[in-house]
Amino acid sequence: MYTLYYAPSTASMAVHWLLIELGVPFELVPVDIGAKAHKSPEFLRINPNGHVPVLVIDGVPYTECAALLMLLPERHPTANLSPAVGTAERSAYLQTMFYLANTLQPAYRSWFYPEEAAGIDNVDAAKLVARAKIEQVWTRLDSKFEDGRVFILGQNLTAADFLATILMRWSRNMPKPATEFPNLARYVDRMRKLPSLREVHARENLTDWICG
Amino acid sequence: MYTLYYAPSTASMAVHWLLIELGVPFELVPVDIGAKAHKSPEFLRINPNGHVPVLVIDGVPYTECAALLMLLPERHPTANLSPAVGTAERSAYLQTMFYLANTLQPAYRSWFYPEEAAGIDNVDAAKLVARAKIEQVWTRLDSKFEDGRVFILGQNLTAADFLATILMRWSRNMPKPATEFPNLARYVDRMRKLPSLREVHARENLTDWICG
Repeated sequence: MYTLYYAPSTASMAVHWLLIELGVPFELVPVDIGAKAHKSPEFLRINPNGHVPVLVIDGVPYTECAALLMLLPERHPTANLSPAVGTAERSAYLQTMFYLANTLQPAYRSWFYPEEAAGIDNVDAAKLVARAKIEQVWTRLDSKFEDGRVFILGQNLTAADFLATILMRWSRNMPKPATEFPNLARYVDRMRKLPSLREVHARENLTDWICG
Repeated sequence: MYTLYYAPSTASMAVHWLLIELGVPFELVPVDIGAKAHKSPEFLRINPNGHVPVLVIDGVPYTECAALLMLLPERHPTANLSPAVGTAERSAYLQTMFYLANTLQPAYRSWFYPEEAAGIDNVDAAKLVARAKIEQVWTRLDSKFEDGRVFILGQNLTAADFLATILMRWSRNMPKPATEFPNLARYVDRMRKLPSLREVHARENLTDWICG
């Protein structure tokens, strides 16, 4: 049994979505980010980093969105959502997961919490840099689709698509969202057709972006 | 056969070290960071991100240090350097790799390239924030060793130790290096005894830190 600590529309949405796609039983515990519940002593005991998602597996809490997205398909291999160890696609999979986690996620952190990048006095400068980095990632991801691939890694849906799609969603109110890049727009349209993506929007009470 | 594009003392050192530890054949291609060779058109064709390490496997270049550190033990499983899929240690392994890649590496980037965080006018503010984040990671990692573990994940050496140790090494000239945290100091002393760590220092012509 899994228990997911989540907040709507945050990184936890990718894990929530994947749990639905996998069709495994799980419980949800909402974390009220608006009320700073993720910085409460109770929550910090579960995740000292003060972030969602936290996924409790057999009583032990685990963190790091990308790690959880890699872990779940390993635990439920019949869904075929992660390239098997030893396959050629495996190298690209690991590379993409770390690229998104290492480049795009920190840039978003600077965009949404610019005071964390260089203090409260330098918010505009931090956002400027963050936006450039995020758009550079969209440019690179968009160019990957030039070879006609259907999903981030090729012809197969993998956990990398769950991370990439949710991170693309985060750009929806930015000056130049991911969907302004033509290949990414077509990719997002394909992903929006997945019943599990529509379902996670419904369960998190979100209507924007999914119907766009 | 592997070909590693590297620059001494950078993130590529972790991959170089792991290749030595695994005892597999590889070729080295030096990238002269001082001469900005990592931003040259030739290198950007291999890695558009302009970073080392790049590991060429069967003619295809792969990037992202942490991804390469996960990939190599999968390709050489007899060395037993990554927890097998399905084991309890696996969850902690994935979590730790992403935590280091996602939290510590971006903070170092802000420390060493503070102009990237919020522009050239806000370098001091960016470094202040970066230093606090890095020391927070040391505090958390140090506390993990309270349970008497020998390595980052427990009793077994894994790829996570290669990433963690090299990232600890990067702090050696910072105001409060990782080795000022008592458990981490003892951990680094243990790691320094590994012949492969001494060997990678020798091959990269580095003398500082390894003899400390």
